Amino acid sequence: MRKIIVQKFGGTSVADTEKIKNVAKTVIMEKENGNDVVVVVSAMGHTTDYLLKMANDLSPNPSGRELDMLLSTGEGVSIALLAMAIQAQGYDAVSFNAMQIGIMTENVHSKARIVDIKTDKLRKNLNDGKIIVVAGFQGVTEDGEITTLGRGGSDTSAVALAAALNAERCDIYTDVEGVYTTDPRIVPKASRLDKISYDEMLELAYAGANVLHPRSVETAKQFNVPMRVRSSFKLDNLGTLILGVEKMEIYKPVAGVAADLSQARIVVCDVPDKPGVAAKLFTKLANENISVDMIIQSYARKVSNTNDIAFTVDRADLTKTVEALESLKADLGVTGEIQVDEGIAKVSIVGAGMIDRPGVASTMFTTLAQQGVNIKMISTSEIKISCLVDKADAQRAVQALHSVFELESDEVAEVKGDLPNI
Amino acid sequence: MRKIIVQKFGGTSVADTEKIKNVAKTVIMEKENGNDVVVVVSAMGHTTDYLLKMANDLSPNPSGRELDMLLSTGEGVSIALLAMAIQAQGYDAVSFNAMQIGIMTENVHSKARIVDIKTDKLRKNLNDGKIIVVAGFQGVTEDGEITTLGRGGSDTSAVALAAALNAERCDIYTDVEGVYTTDPRIVPKASRLDKISYDEMLELAYAGANVLHPRSVETAKQFNVPMRVRSSFKLDNLGTLILGVEKMEIYKPVAGVAADLSQARIVVCDVPDKPGVAAKLFTKLANENISVDMIIQSYARKVSNTNDIAFTVDRADLTKTVEALESLKADLGVTGEIQVDEGIAKVSIVGAGMIDRPGVASTMFTTLAQQGVNIKMISTSEIKISCLVDKADAQRAVQALHSVFELESDEVAEVKGDLPNI
Repeated sequence: MRKIIVQKFGGTSVADTEKIKNVAKTVIMEKENGNDVVVVVSAMGHTTDYLLKMANDLSPNPSGRELDMLLSTGEGVSIALLAMAIQAQGYDAVSFNAMQIGIMTENVHSKARIVDIKTDKLRKNLNDGKIIVVAGFQGVTEDGEITTLGRGGSDTSAVALAAALNAERCDIYTDVEGVYTTDPRIVPKASRLDKISYDEMLELAYAGANVLHPRSVETAKQFNVPMRVRSSFKLDNLGTLILGVEKMEIYKPVAGVAADLSQARIVVCDVPDKPGVAAKLFTKLANENISVDMIIQSYARKVSNTNDIAFTVDRADLTKTVEALESLKADLGVTGEIQVDEGIAKVSIVGAGMIDRPGVASTMFTTLAQQGVNIKMISTSEIKISCLVDKADAQRAVQALHSVFELESDEVAEVKGDLPNI
Repeated sequence: MRKIIVQKFGGTSVADTEKIKNVAKTVIMEKENGNDVVVVVSAMGHTTDYLLKMANDLSPNPSGRELDMLLSTGEGVSIALLAMAIQAQGYDAVSFNAMQIGIMTENVHSKARIVDIKTDKLRKNLNDGKIIVVAGFQGVTEDGEITTLGRGGSDTSAVALAAALNAERCDIYTDVEGVYTTDPRIVPKASRLDKISYDEMLELAYAGANVLHPRSVETAKQFNVPMRVRSSFKLDNLGTLILGVEKMEIYKPVAGVAADLSQARIVVCDVPDKPGVAAKLFTKLANENISVDMIIQSYARKVSNTNDIAFTVDRADLTKTVEALESLKADLGVTGEIQVDEGIAKVSIVGAGMIDRPGVASTMFTTLAQQGVNIKMISTSEIKISCLVDKADAQRAVQALHSVFELESDEVAEVKGDLPNI
């Protein structure tokens, strides 16, 4: 039986007709390798921005249903154009939107989750020898309502299709060459990883690496679909394979180092040390749809019988968070102030190899101490250690950790884009 | 029970967000009149041209299926935006594409015919008090393939929806104020008709009046759906009602005069006078997809036993027609030449009232003779008489006929656009 490869191309890869012709060539190359090919595409370049602008001209708060109706047209354009481009090269291709295939989602607009994908039409067309082009980012409910999947949606569509079709692999084509041991803009000798496990990739993504949205990796992990992240432009480079840890030989304790500069720290001082206070506080934030990352509660002071609760949130949520806390202070009996620190960074090391290698944490803390980097908060998972540090120290911290865990490449990686605001 | 009004707005009426806001107001006005409203819209302004340009960048001959996939996205955008604009005014609205409703067509691309429209979803949403916005021009097959309806498609969608819902009326909003007794650019005192029958409208459309594509009128006639053609911009003017002749009182023999300047005449000289020759000739043209309008066969000449066959075709088909005829000449035993005349016009009078009023034809011919207009060919139907004349005579002929059949208005109509090339 022929193997099925699912490929995904994002908006920049299909931004104009010339780029669509290039995508067609990449698709055909995979077909010529003897595989059946299903291609998932996003909307062309700035289509989504353009559509949203018109929507905002018409309504300050357009309904989620109609926004999904509107945005789903974007992929409708790119799938038809890509199918034409493939046909123009003499190959049989057919495009389908989510409704035609039956990419079934829950009945939620703008961030629906896929619940099922019908494969009859896909299998039939693959058996007929056709290359199938599928609209990413969109779905349909049992009632025929059009939904969209939210951030990382097209990657998730691709992985879910690969799972439904029991595909050999899901290749995510993007503008970077793969997953690196750290951001090459911070450490020029960062090395591209040939392989990484789902869990490591997830931790790296949550720790600030922007290669893949965690959602698609979670789906890949759930259904054990091997993913490959690779460049649309450098096809000789196979990128990074993401797969289950059981399929990997782990020879280094740490796979990568990441810095997240998007967070802010909040300290709520003098919180009464009694049951239910923290629960109330974080329930309030959850109700406001604010995601909290690191949390530390100090030991209770014996005299005042209060403690301090510190946590980090996305800087974009900072104002909302402070407002929510202020409104809650009296109710909780908080007597102290609410301190805000925007000058922080979260530096993380991630690696499945740290599980059975003691001493990784102490190596991290010692390295940071040697660099004179003060650690403000620590959080850990089985395969990750994160330290909150001063933003000014982040670059030095990443470079030192990348070095001490022996992640350097012999070559200088190609650096794209500006250094983030470190 | 509340009455249902179907409204249709073309691409120029929804060309930008400001215009969409205006359409929303017109829709809401009808809702406020106490009616249930279903709105059909076309793609915004130049969307279709833009999409076709990209398709042509990718393929010299894109597949009909993918073209339909591509073009159907145009209405996907306009329906969502119009629904948002209506919602922004505080009214409940919901948009549906053809697939969601079930506007079922035959399995033909780029010119499919509607075979059925499911009404469950429409009825349910109307009963919920919602204004429904429907994508015109598109349909779906039993197999879930997306089709488009071709020229006049959105008008046809609107009429078919009105028929399926047993609507009170189908209002076609356009940039003219209604149907006129003739082109106001030729006769400034042309008068707007308050009413016209389906058959008269059809004959006028075929005779060169460009207000409505005949296809939508045919559908309206078939299901006896009253149509109204009216201006998007002058809402105080009720336009022209198109309905069954049995509902009209006819007090004039002629309802309108039209000129069609798009045809060319071809004469095939010295065709053998034997059975089957004309059949072969016109079958050949039909196979080449060439529509033939007026046909005249001369009496056979006794000496040569040949006759001449003259007919008219669209000037766009002229080259193709001559090539087809040349390739057939030997086979048919045609010994004469093929004459082409592009300097012609078809001038027609149309009116259900001419059926039981003798003398209409003779009045037409006498009037043209008085004007020194030579008649080259004549064809008639029950409610129409067409004369082929020199193009240079067309304007004078139309003016004289409009006058003799007493069609003048007391007012000068507002003239839009340039005079056609008479």
